[in-house]
Amino acid sequence: MPIALSNAAVASEAPLPLWRRYRDVRARTQSLAAPLSPEDCALQSMSDASPVKWHLAHTTWFFETFVVAPHRPSYRLFDPAFRVLFNSYYNGIGEQHPRPERGMLSRPPLDTVLAYRGHVDDAMRECSERARSDAALASLIDLGLAHEEQHQELILTDVLHLLSRNPLQPAYDPARASQPCAASAMRWIRYRAGLANVGHAGDGFAFDNETPRHRVWLEAFALASRPVTNAEYAAFVDDDGYRRPELWLSLGWDAATQRGWRAPLYWMHTGDRRQSFTLHGVADLDPHAPVRHVSYFEADAYARWTGARLPTEFEWEAVASRGEGRAHAGSREDGDTFAHGDVWEWTSSSYAPYAGFRAAMGAIGEYNGKFMCNQYVLRGGSSATPPGHARVTYRNFFPPDARWQFSGIRLARDHAP
Amino acid sequence: MPIALSNAAVASEAPLPLWRRYRDVRARTQSLAAPLSPEDCALQSMSDASPVKWHLAHTTWFFETFVVAPHRPSYRLFDPAFRVLFNSYYNGIGEQHPRPERGMLSRPPLDTVLAYRGHVDDAMRECSERARSDAALASLIDLGLAHEEQHQELILTDVLHLLSRNPLQPAYDPARASQPCAASAMRWIRYRAGLANVGHAGDGFAFDNETPRHRVWLEAFALASRPVTNAEYAAFVDDDGYRRPELWLSLGWDAATQRGWRAPLYWMHTGDRRQSFTLHGVADLDPHAPVRHVSYFEADAYARWTGARLPTEFEWEAVASRGEGRAHAGSREDGDTFAHGDVWEWTSSSYAPYAGFRAAMGAIGEYNGKFMCNQYVLRGGSSATPPGHARVTYRNFFPPDARWQFSGIRLARDHAP
Amino acid sequence: MPIALSNAAVASEAPLPLWRRYRDVRARTQSLAAPLSPEDCALQSMSDASPVKWHLAHTTWFFETFVVAPHRPSYRLFDPAFRVLFNSYYNGIGEQHPRPERGMLSRPPLDTVLAYRGHVDDAMRECSERARSDAALASLIDLGLAHEEQHQELILTDVLHLLSRNPLQPAYDPARASQPCAASAMRWIRYRAGLANVGHAGDGFAFDNETPRHRVWLEAFALASRPVTNAEYAAFVDDDGYRRPELWLSLGWDAATQRGWRAPLYWMHTGDRRQSFTLHGVADLDPHAPVRHVSYFEADAYARWTGARLPTEFEWEAVASRGEGRAHAGSREDGDTFAHGDVWEWTSSSYAPYAGFRAAMGAIGEYNGKFMCNQYVLRGGSSATPPGHARVTYRNFFPPDARWQFSGIRLARDHAP
Amino acid sequence: MPIALSNAAVASEAPLPLWRRYRDVRARTQSLAAPLSPEDCALQSMSDASPVKWHLAHTTWFFETFVVAPHRPSYRLFDPAFRVLFNSYYNGIGEQHPRPERGMLSRPPLDTVLAYRGHVDDAMRECSERARSDAALASLIDLGLAHEEQHQELILTDVLHLLSRNPLQPAYDPARASQPCAASAMRWIRYRAGLANVGHAGDGFAFDNETPRHRVWLEAFALASRPVTNAEYAAFVDDDGYRRPELWLSLGWDAATQRGWRAPLYWMHTGDRRQSFTLHGVADLDPHAPVRHVSYFEADAYARWTGARLPTEFEWEAVASRGEGRAHAGSREDGDTFAHGDVWEWTSSSYAPYAGFRAAMGAIGEYNGKFMCNQYVLRGGSSATPPGHARVTYRNFFPPDARWQFSGIRLARDHAP
Repeated sequence: MPIALSNAAVASEAPLPLWRRYRDVRARTQSLAAPLSPEDCALQSMSDASPVKWHLAHTTWFFETFVVAPHRPSYRLFDPAFRVLFNSYYNGIGEQHPRPERGMLSRPPLDTVLAYRGHVDDAMRECSERARSDAALASLIDLGLAHEEQHQELILTDVLHLLSRNPLQPAYDPARASQPCAASAMRWIRYRAGLANVGHAGDGFAFDNETPRHRVWLEAFALASRPVTNAEYAAFVDDDGYRRPELWLSLGWDAATQRGWRAPLYWMHTGDRRQSFTLHGVADLDPHAPVRHVSYFEADAYARWTGARLPTEFEWEAVASRGEGRAHAGSREDGDTFAHGDVWEWTSSSYAPYAGFRAAMGAIGEYNGKFMCNQYVLRGGSSATPPGHARVTYRNFFPPDARWQFSGIRLARDHAP
Repeated sequence: MPIALSNAAVASEAPLPLWRRYRDVRARTQSLAAPLSPEDCALQSMSDASPVKWHLAHTTWFFETFVVAPHRPSYRLFDPAFRVLFNSYYNGIGEQHPRPERGMLSRPPLDTVLAYRGHVDDAMRECSERARSDAALASLIDLGLAHEEQHQELILTDVLHLLSRNPLQPAYDPARASQPCAASAMRWIRYRAGLANVGHAGDGFAFDNETPRHRVWLEAFALASRPVTNAEYAAFVDDDGYRRPELWLSLGWDAATQRGWRAPLYWMHTGDRRQSFTLHGVADLDPHAPVRHVSYFEADAYARWTGARLPTEFEWEAVASRGEGRAHAGSREDGDTFAHGDVWEWTSSSYAPYAGFRAAMGAIGEYNGKFMCNQYVLRGGSSATPPGHARVTYRNFFPPDARWQFSGIRLARDHAP
Repeated sequence: MPIALSNAAVASEAPLPLWRRYRDVRARTQSLAAPLSPEDCALQSMSDASPVKWHLAHTTWFFETFVVAPHRPSYRLFDPAFRVLFNSYYNGIGEQHPRPERGMLSRPPLDTVLAYRGHVDDAMRECSERARSDAALASLIDLGLAHEEQHQELILTDVLHLLSRNPLQPAYDPARASQPCAASAMRWIRYRAGLANVGHAGDGFAFDNETPRHRVWLEAFALASRPVTNAEYAAFVDDDGYRRPELWLSLGWDAATQRGWRAPLYWMHTGDRRQSFTLHGVADLDPHAPVRHVSYFEADAYARWTGARLPTEFEWEAVASRGEGRAHAGSREDGDTFAHGDVWEWTSSSYAPYAGFRAAMGAIGEYNGKFMCNQYVLRGGSSATPPGHARVTYRNFFPPDARWQFSGIRLARDHAP
Repeated sequence: MPIALSNAAVASEAPLPLWRRYRDVRARTQSLAAPLSPEDCALQSMSDASPVKWHLAHTTWFFETFVVAPHRPSYRLFDPAFRVLFNSYYNGIGEQHPRPERGMLSRPPLDTVLAYRGHVDDAMRECSERARSDAALASLIDLGLAHEEQHQELILTDVLHLLSRNPLQPAYDPARASQPCAASAMRWIRYRAGLANVGHAGDGFAFDNETPRHRVWLEAFALASRPVTNAEYAAFVDDDGYRRPELWLSLGWDAATQRGWRAPLYWMHTGDRRQSFTLHGVADLDPHAPVRHVSYFEADAYARWTGARLPTEFEWEAVASRGEGRAHAGSREDGDTFAHGDVWEWTSSSYAPYAGFRAAMGAIGEYNGKFMCNQYVLRGGSSATPPGHARVTYRNFFPPDARWQFSGIRLARDHAP
């Protein structure tokens, strides 16, 4: 069984042929790197983040390694050294250049990496053709595209982190400024106890970690209609939320005190104003926008401070899949909706295999399964998520102390039926 | 609502009056320390472990702080400095002597700590009397006794770890030797899909983390009838299990390689023989005894190597509570039984609050809830667990890299109905 | 050539026969441990310090390994495991129990170590007899006794450090209190440029690092007549000495800021009073007593603050050997004297071999030479130094960030002739 | 007294006017960066090394801060943020961007740094004119040029280190290959005991750490006529030199074992051949070339293995200044010469102030003095040292574990007169 469960690419009258979709995704990745200099693309700001150049190369390596090389016998590797250099973590493929060393690679230069992309793109054209009659191949390409889209978001999170460490406070995209959000009252959306079906079903692509679709029992609960806003979170900060251990998980308290957390990542105090460092430079905090760049620990402490809790990933999915309609937080049309998609939302669910989960055979099976430990599931998608990438069954995941993602907070509470 | 859910201590015709039970538990703790010198009791072998002297004092501090001081206005603290010195992690009580510094306390000497125990025991006599008519107080004392029993097991695990770091290989209890286990074939015990009730119900003591009793949906599965044995695990070692990354979680592989794991903790290779360091000194490995001192990572890798998986904590509880009878692994009578109780068994369940969980108010609420992050649940109990301490709803928990506990492996697998 | 250069033990009419001296030194060591409990003796407060029990055993190991075993063929080792366990750093002897692990040894218990001392003492009696006619053997025993005297001082510094980490602030010797020092004006003692002879000469014991005696050229200089006092050092603290980088060596500034130094080790601020933690418990700082427990970095910064500098070890020796008489600082008789002996005095001299230095052959040659890197020489002796142990040629040495020794400051300055 | 002791720039008929010399030095720096991409120039391979872009900017900052800004009132800073960004360690100037963060600066881009160089160069033209009649200013400019020359060598050492961490093994200068050295017998050059004058004297530039000229007494000794060669060092490696603790300083043994040293930095074993990574790529080791990229610890251990020792810096200077002529090792003309200049040569002298040393006033006084701790002096100069930069009184210095410099070994021995 292939890891990518898409039948659509073969069977349906897809609105976009595979090759055209491939070109679009690949072009979008490069457009994200366009505002950046070769130096911007080469630096690594911490072990968790990667240089943009590495993202550009690794996504290409994925297609070369899992699609082109196995399916085109005549294919000549662009550079055999890249097999190790741009392997992220696939032990089944072989050695990997150590992750914390990705920022040591001034060579190959950016130009060579772009040439590498072109070389593999050329070979992918034929593979895309062949995928019309080879469902497994089409699924692999779908997986590669979803993989590249994940790295599109990582390019933005990692560049933001790099630029944030520069005292010059350079902006990734100085021209664009965020639109202010409209104020939106928070409602509780209720859900009755019962068996729910969760996980990916039917056509369309999904990652293996979203499968198999299965049943879970949910007790009655209620979810907030939208994520927590900057203004709401600022009240927690002002109420000494970061200095009250009773609000925190033990590990969270350790992290907060040892690392000197006093506010979300990138928040700044400039005189009387609360500002934050963003992709568009330093900007005033929008009080109505969802708070972001908080860790699981902060999300959990905030929820405890309000007397609520974080939702489980299944509570989230059960509500989100009910079809109430989706809207971005703060948009005027969110009257009865379950607004999501502006920030990834921490859930209280540890990232674990679904009942009946089977990882794919071979190296590709390392995609998700081996990371199912000490991470927490985030749901929803963010403003940095590529259009069409997320789904209501989508499971993003990060360690509980991660803050450089576009991660925010949704409240939940038990609800007597 | 008190954290200790025991109504029994008040209502039932308890086989043992509370005071007698108190004395028994307290005496048992001291008997565990009896073979040890003052030096043995003072040393701390790692941050995760505590000196025996600290265990003796902290369990006393628990009664003094949560039972005696609030309930006896005339009570005089044995030593006000102990309030900080022997506070483990209760921020609600106040400052704590840092955990990694517990081994810096040559004073108070062991004799003073024993006098501290006596001082508090004297005061507890009256409290025990009063508990006859005060259910909340009785519950608190029950909690204190369960707490002390937990530390009884920790005394053994921590002393074993300390002695293991001494090249002289001293034995905690040189006289006693383990009885060899009888060989026992492993069977699969099947369970059909359905809603299961899990968590503590009814009378008798339980920790707050076992509540509330609630429903979970289980797909069909099968559990092994007994834990994995030393001989079975040795086959994994011999098959290069510690050198094959495809068998490991990513974090597990990092831990195993960085720390040079090649076998369970305390295993030794002496010429041709496999031996291990135990409370009784260096001893040959019993091939039929359950393997122990493995981390979650090793348990998970072993399971993957066999093609099986670890059970969830609810699968475990559903089978254990079915009343098939319990027997120790390797005993001759385990024909149709679900043998457990020799080693704590890692489950694949991250330690998380049950649906509807509420921590107790005040400092006592820090007992369990704040640790619900990045730990995994173990079920069953071990040979070091005090008699009568464990239950089928009991949730032990440790980080996935912990190996110094008496922790072993139960296999599970999906089972088509 | 033996490392211990004493001819006296054989040739002279020594005031004390070797065996009597041996017994005295050994008894003095045990008397230092007498106020301590087995727990006090077993704990290790940091890697740089050792448990008292280890000191008691290691000094015995030195005699057993270098004197008894090579010279008495019939000698039976007390315990062969001790060869590794109590070897400090002699690679020529073999493996060593790692230094940071010395605090993991609850066994052997203190009683066994004392029995070990007795066992070796018995064997040493005959060796002492034989040394009457064996100068090399006598020199070895002299070395062993000087070695044990060094550990006598370390017992005190290490116990003080251990007790300082205990919030109970226990006193090593609560009964005795320090006598207040008298005020004493500081004078500059001048010295003209010229060739000086430095290093050990003639009879009497010395360590190999004090040899050979050789010539050094000294430019004109002046030394302070006594060490810097607590009151003088407090003025530096009050003048923000710890917050002004221009006063510090670069490495010193790093150490001071990273470790949060704000005063000498063991200084405390209690309300308005300056106090310090001492072997006699918490005590008010004596303004006229020499400041102690300062690192080389602090000594150097203090000297720069005054516009002076630290002396070289040869400047120190040249003045100290001029025979002006020695007196303890603050004593009333120090009119024209070069007062020293209350604190070890940091010199600006890196610990290096003298011109022509040869380490002894074999393992005993590891005593001094291999440590001649990144340490600084201290001269003089302290109140914790055994009577008669130090000499004007004596070279003590510690890394520049060490503060737990009884180390203080002597000022020097250039002096135009 | 200015730190730069050059009177020559003003008084003498200098072969090159100051402005022309300034332009030459500055141009040479840029020519060293010419083969490098923007990415090569932006990365930092370890805390001890700096990005080339940082070197280009910091040397410019030095002229802007210490020369242009104080002497030209109308001067406009190129970018006020650079004051902090490119300050290396001058607390007297103010805050510094942390050294380990130098590799986080993708901005300013290389082009901006080159524009910064041009901007300051323009301003320096007038300053150079004015220096004709202002000796102190001329001395400052001389210091700036010597400073920039030091960074020229660091550019090469730091780029070599960066490229060495890239599995692609890129060459800084692939075209050029080293010329093989001719074999040259090693002779001992003798020196009689006596007073020697050391330190900088007379005209011409020197750093403050080379002053004042003063007397030292030297016992009789002999120096090797040339540095140790690769072939000679390989014999030490082959004789298990890295596995014999008796050859090593204690700290050196710790460093070698903990970091897994088995040969000099950059040495590689490729099949039967000994190769090393160089600025010209991977190359066979030249047996007759001086060994380089060894730490003080390795130099010391090698010397001990041969039965010799390292020279003191004064022994080195006494011989080098005797005027026997200088020649590069392995050149055919080195018959009676003291060959040096191919590698920096570790001396046994800890880096310390000369008797009578005074650091300059103000921030410029931080240039040398504050680093005089836990470093060792190297003498001579290397193939990467700019022509004309070194002198026989020149004191280079690095910590004893530094290996990324072009550092080698000169043997010395005591010599009975």
